[in-house]
Amino acid sequence: MSAAAEGRPPAAAAAAAGEMVREATAWCALHGLVVGDRADPRSGTVPGVGLVHAPFSLLPTHLPESHWRQACELAPIFNELVDRVSLDGDFLQDSLSKTKQVDDFTSRLLEIHRKMMEINKEENIRLGLHRSDYMLDSETNSLLQIELNTISASFPGLGSLVSELHRTLIDQYGHLFCLDSKRVPGNEASSQFAKALARAWNEFNVDSAVIMMIVQPEERNMYDQYWLAKHLKESYPFMLFLSSTCPLTIHYTWHNDYQENFVRDGKTVSVVYFRAGYTPNDYPSEAEWAARLLLEQSSAVKCPSISYHLVGTKKIQQELARPKVLERFLENKEEITKIRKCFAGLWSLDDEEIVKSAIQKPELFVLKPQREGGGNNIYGIDVRETLIRLQKEGGDALAAYILMQRIFPKASLSNLVRGGVCHEALTISELGIYGAYLRNNDKVVMNEQSGYLMRTKVSSSDEGGVAAGFAVLDSLYLTDKAM
Amino acid sequence: MSAAAEGRPPAAAAAAAGEMVREATAWCALHGLVVGDRADPRSGTVPGVGLVHAPFSLLPTHLPESHWRQACELAPIFNELVDRVSLDGDFLQDSLSKTKQVDDFTSRLLEIHRKMMEINKEENIRLGLHRSDYMLDSETNSLLQIELNTISASFPGLGSLVSELHRTLIDQYGHLFCLDSKRVPGNEASSQFAKALARAWNEFNVDSAVIMMIVQPEERNMYDQYWLAKHLKESYPFMLFLSSTCPLTIHYTWHNDYQENFVRDGKTVSVVYFRAGYTPNDYPSEAEWAARLLLEQSSAVKCPSISYHLVGTKKIQQELARPKVLERFLENKEEITKIRKCFAGLWSLDDEEIVKSAIQKPELFVLKPQREGGGNNIYGIDVRETLIRLQKEGGDALAAYILMQRIFPKASLSNLVRGGVCHEALTISELGIYGAYLRNNDKVVMNEQSGYLMRTKVSSSDEGGVAAGFAVLDSLYLTDKAM
Repeated sequence: MSAAAEGRPPAAAAAAAGEMVREATAWCALHGLVVGDRADPRSGTVPGVGLVHAPFSLLPTHLPESHWRQACELAPIFNELVDRVSLDGDFLQDSLSKTKQVDDFTSRLLEIHRKMMEINKEENIRLGLHRSDYMLDSETNSLLQIELNTISASFPGLGSLVSELHRTLIDQYGHLFCLDSKRVPGNEASSQFAKALARAWNEFNVDSAVIMMIVQPEERNMYDQYWLAKHLKESYPFMLFLSSTCPLTIHYTWHNDYQENFVRDGKTVSVVYFRAGYTPNDYPSEAEWAARLLLEQSSAVKCPSISYHLVGTKKIQQELARPKVLERFLENKEEITKIRKCFAGLWSLDDEEIVKSAIQKPELFVLKPQREGGGNNIYGIDVRETLIRLQKEGGDALAAYILMQRIFPKASLSNLVRGGVCHEALTISELGIYGAYLRNNDKVVMNEQSGYLMRTKVSSSDEGGVAAGFAVLDSLYLTDKAM
Repeated sequence: MSAAAEGRPPAAAAAAAGEMVREATAWCALHGLVVGDRADPRSGTVPGVGLVHAPFSLLPTHLPESHWRQACELAPIFNELVDRVSLDGDFLQDSLSKTKQVDDFTSRLLEIHRKMMEINKEENIRLGLHRSDYMLDSETNSLLQIELNTISASFPGLGSLVSELHRTLIDQYGHLFCLDSKRVPGNEASSQFAKALARAWNEFNVDSAVIMMIVQPEERNMYDQYWLAKHLKESYPFMLFLSSTCPLTIHYTWHNDYQENFVRDGKTVSVVYFRAGYTPNDYPSEAEWAARLLLEQSSAVKCPSISYHLVGTKKIQQELARPKVLERFLENKEEITKIRKCFAGLWSLDDEEIVKSAIQKPELFVLKPQREGGGNNIYGIDVRETLIRLQKEGGDALAAYILMQRIFPKASLSNLVRGGVCHEALTISELGIYGAYLRNNDKVVMNEQSGYLMRTKVSSSDEGGVAAGFAVLDSLYLTDKAM
């Protein structure tokens, strides 16, 4: 394959890069591929001010088509798996019993979950909007799962736009790089998520009911959410859409009829879509926990329910990776094999052998705390030091973490554009596959792969997250060969 | 008619206003209704950074349908008039001969024009993208022309979006205000302008030729221009589109073949579209004047040509308003009557009677300098003082100005949104009607009304211009009754 096709632009292409960057950032401004600029103190609370283009990769990241297909095939299987696991309340409680001792956040979630078990709360309509994140391990040339997000999976809106941006740029400049825009897969993540929310509303079957999106009071990524709202409003005009700006301290009136409906502003809420509530910061007082409980008790479809939320924890990810656990939830052996193939090594810290290995060769492991939100993973020499400290502390201290095999994706040169400036950097990429699942009792209404998100970050940085400023939004370019 | 229909919202509507403002500003961010924020020093030069929603009116301004029709009907007549006047070089030179003495900018334009007359330069393909601005005079209930812009008519891109924003808001909230989105006229200004540019390219008839847009090096309104570029690129992909960021000091190679083509980066330029060059600031050195002359000499279609540019001066506007002048250029009496009906009183300052009247009753006049760019008009008591000073100075000092009847539009309450904040204010509005005209020798290829722009400003302010911060972009709402 030519150098150009591998992303190293020839001279003509390099000369066009400056013009491309201007074209691309202008495209972002015209097409709503924007975020709040942290330099503007109002940009997270007032829409339309302090806008800046979302950071992006100038060209899409190459991915072998076989791995793309593999990731897409996994989406409906993971969707189904989440649903099955969510129904096994005892499994969730047991698996997380030690985590509960050391992590207050998980403990509070489990408490709500336990209360629902006590009243035999049934969720007949179950909606999941997930994102399963993968990296391509260069040692084994295999796609390995990093994590499965079952709450507030972000960037369905902006991610779709990046694919469109890349197609547009390739249509205009692709000949310089020997690229063909048809090799960038279509990405309808936000309209797919909107469709799933609308179908859940439909299953709820109350014409006057509304969908409520719960958001954080300050959110620089609000346009990702507004894109979803736009798709909902345009395609499903029969639904009023409420965006609660005051996150979990929602102003509610409790309509205590036999259906236990959740009512807001006089409207029954059919679906509660959480774009908040996934981090302890979203619960600054007891009021937010009370609201979360109230919502869970209501008849509204929760996306996610407390069970779905718990299935997405790292501890459950690790439990599912243990021998014979998948078999408890799935029958189809082919599906089990597919799922297991993408599991990286995952271990609980009560496995003394593996802790010993990790202290000896910390560079081969990642130490992951049970808390959510990213930015807390421990790498390299810190793995050793932390493990030794935790062992000394004794008791349940070790239960706050899990160990994961460290994945070594192949680094490649990318042009990252941020704040209107383009930087060439050695980067690694993470592929997220969105999945939408909707079930009403025995009827599976929807079980689909629903678009994707590529995130690319500077490889010398160990921490991810576009919001943290180390990573950019990206899309993908399908290639025939292995990377 | 109800209070609601007149734009005074009832209580429910007032309560919804806060939500509407957030919806509207978010819509702007998603749909590219943005400008560069003056608070960000890079916002005028680097696309995609320092963005803020364009200031806008929350709801469209009411306009009687009869006046709307009148303004639309005038567009093709003015298009034709500009073309006819442009062909009468002596008329332009004579009319502006005194202005030349006192205004260096007009003098330089006239010099280029004279040179073109000397070499009998013929412009067979003539493209005009104009905007005729009107106000509705409340004293006479008549639509009166403020000015006719024949160069760099701004906001075809953002103006179209405001109409779309208002339709969207009315679809969502219109029931609260008794409004119907179908009463907001469709507005395709930017795609219409793109079509006209593409057709001019087509008439030029060189497949490999490009269109060149000349812009200012710093332009916070760049997204208005990018919208036009987007429409061009999407609908007419056969054309390469160059946006010169270094305005009139263009880097050119002079291709001195028999056609006297203007060539840039190896490509023949078929159409030069000026979004710069209308103010003396765009000519900081002789290099820019040399470039303007070079372009004028070339075979490229200039939008506008030097003649079209001069037809748009205030002095020519005033000359056309003199008795029997219109008859020199138009034959159709009905059309002449229509044009004359929209002319406000316009006088040269060599009319001693009118100068005397203006000194006595300055509140009935506006004193307009011959310079372009807005922001220099003189109102109220300053009219008297300036006239007295100019009379004392004697000589040609008076020739630098024209007098215009002051128009008194009816003020009404509007909600103006700027920087995410909504202010209720007593406002007046100015209606701009875009016109596109394309001619190739005897063949009129295009002569159309091409969308509109409403601008609304706080009535206590005497100066206009969205860029100056006193005005907002707006659209219009057709009513049956007179205002």
